[in-house]
Amino acid sequence: MNAARLNGQVRIVGTGLLGTSIGLALREQGVDVVLANRSPAALRLAVDYGAGREASSEDSPALVIVAVSPDSTAEIVAAELIAHPEALVTDVASVKAGILADLIARGADVARYLGSHPMAGREKGGAISARADIFLGRPWVIAPHAGSTVEQERMLEDLALDLGSVPIRLEPDAHDRGVALVSHVPQVVASLLAARLLDGQDAVAALAGQGLRDTTRIAASDPELWIQILAANAGPVAHILEEFRHDLDGVIEALERPDAPGAPTRVAAMLTRGNQGVARIPGKHGGDARYATLVVQVADEPGELARLLTEIGEEGVNLEDFRLEHSPNAQIGFAEIAVLPEVARDLADALIGRGWALAESRR
Amino acid sequence: MNAARLNGQVRIVGTGLLGTSIGLALREQGVDVVLANRSPAALRLAVDYGAGREASSEDSPALVIVAVSPDSTAEIVAAELIAHPEALVTDVASVKAGILADLIARGADVARYLGSHPMAGREKGGAISARADIFLGRPWVIAPHAGSTVEQERMLEDLALDLGSVPIRLEPDAHDRGVALVSHVPQVVASLLAARLLDGQDAVAALAGQGLRDTTRIAASDPELWIQILAANAGPVAHILEEFRHDLDGVIEALERPDAPGAPTRVAAMLTRGNQGVARIPGKHGGDARYATLVVQVADEPGELARLLTEIGEEGVNLEDFRLEHSPNAQIGFAEIAVLPEVARDLADALIGRGWALAESRR
Repeated sequence: MNAARLNGQVRIVGTGLLGTSIGLALREQGVDVVLANRSPAALRLAVDYGAGREASSEDSPALVIVAVSPDSTAEIVAAELIAHPEALVTDVASVKAGILADLIARGADVARYLGSHPMAGREKGGAISARADIFLGRPWVIAPHAGSTVEQERMLEDLALDLGSVPIRLEPDAHDRGVALVSHVPQVVASLLAARLLDGQDAVAALAGQGLRDTTRIAASDPELWIQILAANAGPVAHILEEFRHDLDGVIEALERPDAPGAPTRVAAMLTRGNQGVARIPGKHGGDARYATLVVQVADEPGELARLLTEIGEEGVNLEDFRLEHSPNAQIGFAEIAVLPEVARDLADALIGRGWALAESRR
Repeated sequence: MNAARLNGQVRIVGTGLLGTSIGLALREQGVDVVLANRSPAALRLAVDYGAGREASSEDSPALVIVAVSPDSTAEIVAAELIAHPEALVTDVASVKAGILADLIARGADVARYLGSHPMAGREKGGAISARADIFLGRPWVIAPHAGSTVEQERMLEDLALDLGSVPIRLEPDAHDRGVALVSHVPQVVASLLAARLLDGQDAVAALAGQGLRDTTRIAASDPELWIQILAANAGPVAHILEEFRHDLDGVIEALERPDAPGAPTRVAAMLTRGNQGVARIPGKHGGDARYATLVVQVADEPGELARLLTEIGEEGVNLEDFRLEHSPNAQIGFAEIAVLPEVARDLADALIGRGWALAESRR
């Protein structure tokens, strides 16, 4: 029954979305999970869901996972370190450096603390939204510090792998700067950009294209959640935003005084650095040089897209990436298909032979 | 043979990507197209491509389309107005107010000039990249002014419709502000954001997710092209970037001095205004409230995605939108499917019945 890499009992403190979801996933693999929560009603709910059994004085956890709100995390971790002197204690808060500093200030036994951060998506909170699969394929950051050991890292790697996550090792400061860079700053920039659209409704409705949709999509995120996230990582976020503003100042000045010395160069450098920056993002998406892109016209009718993908399957070709572009008011969409370069030409010929119209790349 | 809405001869001056593509598309519909270009070799190439025949002194165009570089456009439009006193003259430059002002300053007969802007995608320039289909489904802005008439607008609407475009009426100033808002400013912001990634390679590689990919995708655009576009519309772009900077200053201050009066409110207002702004973007994409979203796990194996879409087709459901999310290093992808709300539950049941695993929404 026990299919997990993890050995021993796991104690989860806090049965919100993350704590309950971790419990569900570990129970599916036969791990002995005990749950604790300040609120008896919330605890009962998580137990009823099957996330584990109620904690008792008989427990002897090998691992304690603190899954409470970020501003209570250090306090609870410190208490758990005292209550369970044999256990490794971790947490799941989305910032890491501040919690470690807080623990050290409290005189906690940080030699048994190793922080982590599962980067799991969630639109709704609470145990009621918990699911065992929310960690699948997501990064799970493990944040080693001067007092932690490789054996402890291995234990959290086992936890992450048991949940289907991809374990990633990043020290606390690097983690906080990293999430500011790849997540928190993009959120602020997208929100600021989308807010500008409040000034130009007619033009937005008529002219909006894929570029605008892409750059502003995450501006639809939940403000309540993001107020907390930004407050918890304010320092690194503000630092990167200041660097952004410095570059922005240069672009504005170059546009307003195009004849000033260096002005054209500054705009060119900004665009070129953007090219270089986006090239650092790994993965299948975007202008990934490893793949060739075909653009196929698809009529906006039921079954057309399915027929296209079926026929690509019949040609024995695997899609590496796929995007659908559809302009408002147009009776036609464009399917952008990324495939291995060596099959692109044959696939293009085959699709044309089957009656599909290939279009120019739309970017 | 003549299937076009347009009546009469069309003269195209400038046989680059846009001029040659317009010629090809109009010739396909039997329109009599005559072509002119300073360079005899470039003109010969466009004629050989089938974009029209060489202009001669016998021509009597009803419509002249000036498709030269933005900085030569006003001069050539003025010359064409004199050379063809019966014709309507338009242009295809990506800015409109400056060209009209230049024509008025030159004393040109602007009562026969009506500017336009086909918003057609193009990665490569020149007649050699010309294709009749680049205008399909794209906005074609027609920019009326105090001296132009409804009959002239109708003629350019016929042109746009003949090419498969969606004609849109916007006065020159509104056009220039509009393209700054929906296209030029997003490009600058995406480039500035992507440039920040040059400082954090390790974290970028490990933590990059869909939000970062979306917000920075267009930062991969061609710098040479964008230097010209931004220079031509520098005033409106700089104006919007200044407003953006004003909001950015407020966010940075609130993050750096979280206890200052109004600081939390300011971050909340920024996020809420972002929500409101993105809600103004029409179309099928993003968090469109008209559709329900299902997220289906898809193994990263040949044919899996095609099988999913085939089976959705077999259930008689039309996809309203479709996105594929795939994390680096993960052996699993997530297909995000937007469908009409009334069919969402039945489709979810059917897919589960067919053995697919549905996941939490990943945003």
